[in-house]
Amino acid sequence: MLDGKLITFEGPEGAGKTTVLAIIAQRLKEKYKAILVTREPGGITISEKIRDIILNPDHIEMNEHTEALLYAAARSQHYFEKIEPSLKEGTLVLCDRFIDSSLAYQGYARGLGIDNVRKINSFAIGDKLPDITILFDLPPEIGLSRITANQERENNRLDQEHLAFHQKVREGYLQLASKDKERIVIIDANQEITKVVEDVWQALLKKLI
Amino acid sequence: MLDGKLITFEGPEGAGKTTVLAIIAQRLKEKYKAILVTREPGGITISEKIRDIILNPDHIEMNEHTEALLYAAARSQHYFEKIEPSLKEGTLVLCDRFIDSSLAYQGYARGLGIDNVRKINSFAIGDKLPDITILFDLPPEIGLSRITANQERENNRLDQEHLAFHQKVREGYLQLASKDKERIVIIDANQEITKVVEDVWQALLKKLI
Repeated sequence: MLDGKLITFEGPEGAGKTTVLAIIAQRLKEKYKAILVTREPGGITISEKIRDIILNPDHIEMNEHTEALLYAAARSQHYFEKIEPSLKEGTLVLCDRFIDSSLAYQGYARGLGIDNVRKINSFAIGDKLPDITILFDLPPEIGLSRITANQERENNRLDQEHLAFHQKVREGYLQLASKDKERIVIIDANQEITKVVEDVWQALLKKLI
Repeated sequence: MLDGKLITFEGPEGAGKTTVLAIIAQRLKEKYKAILVTREPGGITISEKIRDIILNPDHIEMNEHTEALLYAAARSQHYFEKIEPSLKEGTLVLCDRFIDSSLAYQGYARGLGIDNVRKINSFAIGDKLPDITILFDLPPEIGLSRITANQERENNRLDQEHLAFHQKVREGYLQLASKDKERIVIIDANQEITKVVEDVWQALLKKLI
């Protein structure tokens, strides 16, 4: 059997990643038998417990090295326990955030250095990269205004960061995309959701054929 | 004011580290005003929560990379939030386990490589090392029989490892000690506890004068 593919969805909070991912997964199910939808940090018992520590809004004292190491720890467990076995069974794995989040948020925006964060991630999962990455791009003030307006969403520790931080996250993502055009597809997320879904769908069809 | 010193206590479970540390701390309090006793993994809110994940005996599925990254994450938070500020105030910090535990357990005994584990710890805390390390050395079968006999002690995930693993931990520690004789003092922990206390006390007096 052919190995599956790992498709990751990246971008800031409020870009519509999670909503679009659910719709796309539904559509893909009509074409592919085996689809797994998962998320980071989390996706499996140990990693969800690590997620609770990372995102707890009370943990304002957490330093950026601890944060980056916790993300890498959660990723390692999630990858080897859930993603890799699924890929080996030929499953199409859709993951909400993956390594590029660490590179953009901790490596670039927190100033730890993209290469330094890449190294601890190599320790965590080796040289594995997603097959396809969909990057939801939009001005950070629009993403932030969407999450503030969304009453149902529980704000997490990283939402509390200021606009300047989220601006840097965007720069980090765009820098990563410019260096890996083969893998990372930039989607304009500053559009109606139906239009974003259509753009993601077309991008995936091109890559999956 | 002079910077304090970081003294770490290392060795297998059942070597008497924690008991001896408490007695030594009591004696040091007669000589030094500021003493801080702490432990790893843990020592501070976020790191104690990480400790709960690492040591939970139900987490048998945890892979060795996740384990090493969690220890490094807990160490980073503990070091920068608690140990470093105390050292800057001139405090003598006594810590039950520190970086050498990661090098011996994950680096050597789990086979991740001492240098690989050292690298993620450099990411976590930079090039900081303890000023003095007391290594409690004893045959692993004796340490294991002591923890089995101790009804009050709650067994953790790492206690469940087999004798061969604990044998490797000992080898790892002795290798580290042979390469850093200036910092690491080997204490024969296969003696009456009063004798062990005396040996640790004499070793510390020599180093602290």
